[in-house]
Amino acid sequence: MSKEEVGITVTKNEDFSEWYTQVVLKAKLADYAPVKGLIVLRPDGYSIWESLRSTFDSKFSKNGIRNGFLPILIPESLLGKEQKHFAGFNPEVFWVTHSGTNEVGDRLALRPTSETLAYTLYSKWIQSWRDLPLKINFWNTALRAEIKATKPFLRTSEFLWQEGHTVHTTQEEAEKEVMKILEIYKNTVEEELAIPVITGKKSEKEKFVGAVYTTTMESIMPDGKALQMGTSHFLGQNFSKPFEVKFADKDNVEHFAWQTSWGVSWRLIGAMIMVHGDDKGLVLPPKVAPTQVVIVPIYKNDEGKEKVFEKVQEIKSNLELQEIRIHVDDREGLSPGFKFNDWELKGVPLRIEIGPKDIEKESIVIAKRHTREKSSLNFSKIEKIPSILDEIQDEMFKSAKIQSMQNTIEIADYSDFKSKIEKGGFINSPWCGKLECEEKIKEETGADIRLIPFDSENSDKKCIYCQQQSVSVPIFARGY
Amino acid sequence: MSKEEVGITVTKNEDFSEWYTQVVLKAKLADYAPVKGLIVLRPDGYSIWESLRSTFDSKFSKNGIRNGFLPILIPESLLGKEQKHFAGFNPEVFWVTHSGTNEVGDRLALRPTSETLAYTLYSKWIQSWRDLPLKINFWNTALRAEIKATKPFLRTSEFLWQEGHTVHTTQEEAEKEVMKILEIYKNTVEEELAIPVITGKKSEKEKFVGAVYTTTMESIMPDGKALQMGTSHFLGQNFSKPFEVKFADKDNVEHFAWQTSWGVSWRLIGAMIMVHGDDKGLVLPPKVAPTQVVIVPIYKNDEGKEKVFEKVQEIKSNLELQEIRIHVDDREGLSPGFKFNDWELKGVPLRIEIGPKDIEKESIVIAKRHTREKSSLNFSKIEKIPSILDEIQDEMFKSAKIQSMQNTIEIADYSDFKSKIEKGGFINSPWCGKLECEEKIKEETGADIRLIPFDSENSDKKCIYCQQQSVSVPIFARGY
Repeated sequence: MSKEEVGITVTKNEDFSEWYTQVVLKAKLADYAPVKGLIVLRPDGYSIWESLRSTFDSKFSKNGIRNGFLPILIPESLLGKEQKHFAGFNPEVFWVTHSGTNEVGDRLALRPTSETLAYTLYSKWIQSWRDLPLKINFWNTALRAEIKATKPFLRTSEFLWQEGHTVHTTQEEAEKEVMKILEIYKNTVEEELAIPVITGKKSEKEKFVGAVYTTTMESIMPDGKALQMGTSHFLGQNFSKPFEVKFADKDNVEHFAWQTSWGVSWRLIGAMIMVHGDDKGLVLPPKVAPTQVVIVPIYKNDEGKEKVFEKVQEIKSNLELQEIRIHVDDREGLSPGFKFNDWELKGVPLRIEIGPKDIEKESIVIAKRHTREKSSLNFSKIEKIPSILDEIQDEMFKSAKIQSMQNTIEIADYSDFKSKIEKGGFINSPWCGKLECEEKIKEETGADIRLIPFDSENSDKKCIYCQQQSVSVPIFARGY
Repeated sequence: MSKEEVGITVTKNEDFSEWYTQVVLKAKLADYAPVKGLIVLRPDGYSIWESLRSTFDSKFSKNGIRNGFLPILIPESLLGKEQKHFAGFNPEVFWVTHSGTNEVGDRLALRPTSETLAYTLYSKWIQSWRDLPLKINFWNTALRAEIKATKPFLRTSEFLWQEGHTVHTTQEEAEKEVMKILEIYKNTVEEELAIPVITGKKSEKEKFVGAVYTTTMESIMPDGKALQMGTSHFLGQNFSKPFEVKFADKDNVEHFAWQTSWGVSWRLIGAMIMVHGDDKGLVLPPKVAPTQVVIVPIYKNDEGKEKVFEKVQEIKSNLELQEIRIHVDDREGLSPGFKFNDWELKGVPLRIEIGPKDIEKESIVIAKRHTREKSSLNFSKIEKIPSILDEIQDEMFKSAKIQSMQNTIEIADYSDFKSKIEKGGFINSPWCGKLECEEKIKEETGADIRLIPFDSENSDKKCIYCQQQSVSVPIFARGY
């Protein structure tokens, strides 16, 4: 295979969309499935998801949330019980009509989300205040038919996600849970994936139809489009009433419970690829990288090889003891240059090169993936590699933060807004709070309200569209 | 609620099937979903699955197996590509015919198993010997419509499982993998779930239709019926030929690859419930118990309470440091007796009772769930609790092993066979190897060949049915 075939053939700037797809496929994170709209995760892609799952699980668990399992089939009659909620998913639902050669009576939906199913069960499980709070999370997939072109991790008809569903005795407790989850989402994405996010509320138009309100975290991608990274909904009693999720309080009086639901999906992996990747391919944050360090041994003859491999083995054992995920590329018949390109394409954060000359100098060469800087590291300093990985993680976050800030501007004038939106980015502009202005802006510019920052409510500026008194300064952007 | 409603109302001996269902529901492991044939896992049930998953993952990983993700929808045309394989699942497949209001062209099957999908992808991913062995495991669910009454964990239309799919350059390497996996299955089930299993080959009649041969592990349940606990298949080139899973060898000649597939499901949890449970409810092996130790503080007034809770906290911290999963039942308004019953129903392996008198005596009372023995343990010996849990695990395995041995007999005479099979159990009887005899035995007694032990091939006895020369001594039983 020539280098051209293996590597990425377009730059990130010249064709972002094609660049993205090539990175996903050539770094072997995912592949297309035979059914339009569906993808498969290869081990390197799934491993990133497992790493995120494990971090979330540990944080959920500290917050008293446990995992459960829900089946994928939901009867049509149940899905329709909360009409507003149902209407939102209707056009996207996959329907099972037969098992074997038999027709099923009530058609079965492949789960687009599990509120209706979970709350039917919760209503059985909850009798009194003793059973609350009930906080269960489900790691599964959701299915929503996508008619547009498949975009791995971003637009697929089945996607891996988690959906959490909690029930509380008071509104206050439920609303605290909504914010607690949003906080867990934010710090996990920032700390693990090195992607800065902003958080706030969705507008009425953009909220989850079944929610009283929706909180969200959003990021701006390098192409200037916004990506919704996760949502945490306050459901109020919107579901507890139709589904009869009730509890007897200490005074034995029955009340409808207060609920939340929240989720993040593998879309986070898509964001990671877009934010950090470069013209050479994937760039992985060390914390989630399936392989954190790759060693490429360099030698010309058998004698040299033996000496090199002795040292390689020593370094490998040393770093494994420090729980570094390390791989030695000992493939025969491939040049060091080929291997360098291969591991750069795959985004391994740190490469170690070691040859006979390095052994003489008692040092190794280290190459950082994110900056592509090479330097030499004395044998005595190999212990420092874990902290070098931490530095890489920090540097990646800082550089993403700068990128994101450069892509965020404040605009008060609508004609300015219209011209700037062409370049993409987050735009902070005052808004009167009326649906009509929100819709007009969307219609005329393609931008929607991504979120209303929590601290921006009660603004006293003029609405960018109608010039009337504004109520907040939302962040507008064109979105994915 | 009265004690009758909360606890198990039948004994394990008098109505095994009802007893089983009550344990599953009342111990809150699982519940029925609104769709017939489907169940939901509550946190205590799912936690056991997570524990098994984590043990298997660590063993798979040491064996070079990584996890991936496959979508749930498989086009009908693809599923039918390996005809023999397809025919086996045809009557059980759930079919998606619509997305929203649109008809889908090629109907989509909900995955009954993923061989056809995985190997379509493998055929793209594998070019040369360098890409092999390829060993990927998928934790997901499979769907096969069940027409009989739902039995949680044992008979459900959707079930949690793992399916592993490996590809090798040689037959020998693939066959070694089959046995390696079977060994991992056996030692995990024996060590984690404390259930003894026997391993061997399935007969031609009972093997996975797509396989060259199927190896299996089986256990005998307390009601005398056998349960298949997991299978590991040698697929030979049965799939690599229709799916073109080919590789160029070092000499650049193309060959069809050699394949394996293997799986265990949440049925293992069903076995655990049946083997260890008793008239009081669930009995959990400590290694997989979501809660390993429960502390029930006993006190009459506030002064007593304070002293007791101080000690409780000390014990809790001490055991948490030793990574014991511990819970303090501090619910107000419930009697110690109620709490004891509750935790016995839920199967927690060890209960600690501590009251003011115990504090005076500087000791706690410990009650083992599996034997219901109580004894007292001096404060100075609290460090021993982890090793007490290990002893419980061992004792549970030994007692299950004795139960299983008592349920296994050798029989050479067919009329004897016919009478003994009524009591259930594993029956070792010689067999000529002919399908006709196997079918007649099944027809006349309801027993099938569960497995042919690896060491029993080449037997020189007389077939129990036709009295001709036997070729092996299989284990017969009526099965789940």
